[in-house]
Amino acid sequence: MSDLYQANLDQNPANYTPLSPLSFLRRSRDVYPEHVAVIYGDRRYTWAEVYQRCVRLAGALGARGIGPGDTVAVMAANLPEMFEAHFGVPMTGAVLNAINIRLDAATVRFILEHGEARVFLVDREFGPVAREALDGMDDPPLVVGIDDPTFAGGEVLGELDYDALLAEGSADADWQLPADEWHAIALNYTSGTTGNPKGVVYHHRGAYLNAVSNALTWSMGEHPVYLWTLPMFHCNGWCFPWTLAATAGTSVCLRQVRAEAVFQAIAEHRVSHFCGAPIVLNTLLSADSALRAGIAHEVKVMTAGAAPPAAVIAGMEKMGMRVTHVYGLTETYGPVTLCAWQGRRWDDLTEDQKAALKARQGVRGHMLEGLMVADPETLTPVPQDGVTLGEVFMRGNNVMKGYLKNPAATAEAFAGGWFHSGDLAVWHEDGYIQVKDRSKDIIISGGENISSIEIEDVLYRHPKVQEAAVVAKTDAKWGETPCAFVTLRPGSQCEAEEIIAFCRDNMARFKAPRFVVFCDLPKTSTGKVQKYVLRDQAESL
Amino acid sequence: MSDLYQANLDQNPANYTPLSPLSFLRRSRDVYPEHVAVIYGDRRYTWAEVYQRCVRLAGALGARGIGPGDTVAVMAANLPEMFEAHFGVPMTGAVLNAINIRLDAATVRFILEHGEARVFLVDREFGPVAREALDGMDDPPLVVGIDDPTFAGGEVLGELDYDALLAEGSADADWQLPADEWHAIALNYTSGTTGNPKGVVYHHRGAYLNAVSNALTWSMGEHPVYLWTLPMFHCNGWCFPWTLAATAGTSVCLRQVRAEAVFQAIAEHRVSHFCGAPIVLNTLLSADSALRAGIAHEVKVMTAGAAPPAAVIAGMEKMGMRVTHVYGLTETYGPVTLCAWQGRRWDDLTEDQKAALKARQGVRGHMLEGLMVADPETLTPVPQDGVTLGEVFMRGNNVMKGYLKNPAATAEAFAGGWFHSGDLAVWHEDGYIQVKDRSKDIIISGGENISSIEIEDVLYRHPKVQEAAVVAKTDAKWGETPCAFVTLRPGSQCEAEEIIAFCRDNMARFKAPRFVVFCDLPKTSTGKVQKYVLRDQAESL
Repeated sequence: MSDLYQANLDQNPANYTPLSPLSFLRRSRDVYPEHVAVIYGDRRYTWAEVYQRCVRLAGALGARGIGPGDTVAVMAANLPEMFEAHFGVPMTGAVLNAINIRLDAATVRFILEHGEARVFLVDREFGPVAREALDGMDDPPLVVGIDDPTFAGGEVLGELDYDALLAEGSADADWQLPADEWHAIALNYTSGTTGNPKGVVYHHRGAYLNAVSNALTWSMGEHPVYLWTLPMFHCNGWCFPWTLAATAGTSVCLRQVRAEAVFQAIAEHRVSHFCGAPIVLNTLLSADSALRAGIAHEVKVMTAGAAPPAAVIAGMEKMGMRVTHVYGLTETYGPVTLCAWQGRRWDDLTEDQKAALKARQGVRGHMLEGLMVADPETLTPVPQDGVTLGEVFMRGNNVMKGYLKNPAATAEAFAGGWFHSGDLAVWHEDGYIQVKDRSKDIIISGGENISSIEIEDVLYRHPKVQEAAVVAKTDAKWGETPCAFVTLRPGSQCEAEEIIAFCRDNMARFKAPRFVVFCDLPKTSTGKVQKYVLRDQAESL
Repeated sequence: MSDLYQANLDQNPANYTPLSPLSFLRRSRDVYPEHVAVIYGDRRYTWAEVYQRCVRLAGALGARGIGPGDTVAVMAANLPEMFEAHFGVPMTGAVLNAINIRLDAATVRFILEHGEARVFLVDREFGPVAREALDGMDDPPLVVGIDDPTFAGGEVLGELDYDALLAEGSADADWQLPADEWHAIALNYTSGTTGNPKGVVYHHRGAYLNAVSNALTWSMGEHPVYLWTLPMFHCNGWCFPWTLAATAGTSVCLRQVRAEAVFQAIAEHRVSHFCGAPIVLNTLLSADSALRAGIAHEVKVMTAGAAPPAAVIAGMEKMGMRVTHVYGLTETYGPVTLCAWQGRRWDDLTEDQKAALKARQGVRGHMLEGLMVADPETLTPVPQDGVTLGEVFMRGNNVMKGYLKNPAATAEAFAGGWFHSGDLAVWHEDGYIQVKDRSKDIIISGGENISSIEIEDVLYRHPKVQEAAVVAKTDAKWGETPCAFVTLRPGSQCEAEEIIAFCRDNMARFKAPRFVVFCDLPKTSTGKVQKYVLRDQAESL
């Protein structure tokens, strides 16, 4: 760049501000102070009130010595306090570590120690597991209990409770945006099926941009009404607390995702948007249709976490819910691709064709800069033929800073200047990617790659199947062979032969499972099927 | 920030990309290649085609030695070529200088010389003035003619025309995002009523963020159909070429803003959005209502450039057009505030009350970080009382880098860490600002501040008044006194006394103009009334 545009045109406080989602909170307070920001049961907070509570939280934490680079952990359901922590903690410069509420005490303790948490906010529901995690820690954090009066169980831990903490902070407390937009805002541990979880670090710039990307990708407009069916500990609720600040929306909080409560909230608050793994959608589909009474408006649903079976998408659409399938990882602030709709070219397809298209992971979102399916060794893109398998790679501002205190894993994840997702996919002619499996979940039978997801998709179309998962089983002749684990719908009965015959009729015969086991599926705390458990089981058959 | 989150968590190509609106063009090409991006008469280009044409333009310019920090000037109507220049030029790292097409040759020459343009793209309509501007220049730029076959007049200048230039570039030419998001993307000269125009420099980061801010502020969603009634030379069409890339929208180009062509385009292409100064709205309101046949859909209109008279807003709303009033300056990439709607609290007001609220400049847009009305000397915010006058100040990422080769003016504009707008406003209790005048347009009569805009607003409500402007006239007794210049509606007749009486009946008597002159109003090339001309005229009465 020549000197012409470099001289005397520097950054200054008038023309440069670090990007941070905290700016969105301040704007919603300034512009829509009276608009309802958070609803939980009988509780209601406007944006002015939420802002004030967040400032109090920041002030109180600051007074207790929390500042830039400190970690504040939280273990809570989707409560107003959890929402507030997404702003109040970073307002001090500290980093929010939202811990998966379904973890065991040993893992929680690992995370508290690895992340060096100085404060730990604990919802009473998770008091018992937190107590066990904290027991005997050398350098325990300050524990603050969150006492939800609508929840009877659990145990309120800590020296003081959240309300007392807020009372320590002033509503006028001063706070600053981060000095640098690259500073960390959140720490999220992967669920890691083997070994210790890794601590994924997000920065303010990425959180700001991903929050906006959500709003653009979903055309959310102003004042969406968002139902919290997605856990806020999961990639910071995919960054939606910050999206809702950017769009001055309303958060409808829910402690538990039960069909009755979900439908009731949708009807009562005219919910416009919610997110959830396919299992959440399945829960709604399986529910008594009487629960849907009083819902006439369109609801937009974003689903991720696993490829939604085409049947689930079709079922949701019939219920008047528009499903957008998105895809991403903890390392990418949650979803960064979406199955974008191609207007008139797709409008006239049959429902089944539409659902099949929607089951693909799609194209990059607004703020992901690069997406490709490529050879994992050479990083050469695979042909866009819908057949050749490669690994999914991403790059852009909504990719993590790296793994906390793990330079080796960070370097490996970013080798070659792209983030290595570990997911295997094909790239279709229209530029859409379709994830076939995690690298480790692909089944190689007689030298042919078989996608466990493809088999699962067929299984879900069987009318008696409620849930299904397929893994590889070692086979003397073929190397590996598919083994299916199936949960039947309540009241259904079925033999393995019927399932196998159905698969043979609906896909290439060699891909059909040779073993079918009927059981409940073991799941991780985020609702993903624990395939490593099933693999052990399959081997012992 | 502690070391915990600083060590081994650096930027790399996988997790950091400079922000640039060029990324949006690439995404629309990747995701919606077949979607129509540009329409002009019989011409149609998809996003894939526009992308290819922009790459060709960049390749051709690069081959002719244009690169980072070079200036490429353009003088063109709202043509596809003008749209493409917003991408093709910055793809080379060069800076786009879109010159106001209504300027005289001497000013165009000043701009070409001051901005050190190395290439000059000239639409045939402006060939004659460009020829005069270039005549005898010491170091003239390479001149490229844009030959629009649907326009008969003017003169195609230059060594080669735009199509020949594109043919020099390959559709596969390589291009890069800027190495630094702070690098300049555009140069826009202020219309400066006195002295030489100043060159306002925009950077990639600001253009990216302001493009997104437009989409959020207006809830544009995917695939808006945008009609080009706002000149693209005006703050880069307020950054909408980049917004349309971000939203994969369709640009409907228009050489001239005539009511018939506007209504026809709205009906034919189902235009969803357009922008324009109040005079554009006035043109549509005054047009034969038969022209509106065939328009049943809602159209969103953004207006800026002057406070729209309440009567104009009310008239547009009656036509089914939803008006959003926005406000900004060349130095802020165009509008950065909007009169945000306050939902139910405003919905039940009368049309006149709504129009009066909408006439205010409002609150900050999504990506402006700070907005205040303050004392110009101390920068102390004025009380939010709707009465106290102060200057409007802004800060944020959509504030210019500064003025090209003018460090003194840059320092003055940014004194105290805020951008000094030069506009005088009051701050209402609800946080909305209302611009009362440019600093130099306020009338001080008997020690009282009188806003010329307030008087103009009353004048516009008179049924015979088509346009009005008010300036100060020196007065022996009062210091200054208001003098009104009025254009009557076609066929109307009126005496000054009638106008003065109407003003006295509709506002504080001391504010009523004491002189009324009937005439056509002199305007700048961007359609703003030239008050300095009227001030001279008022003094000589």
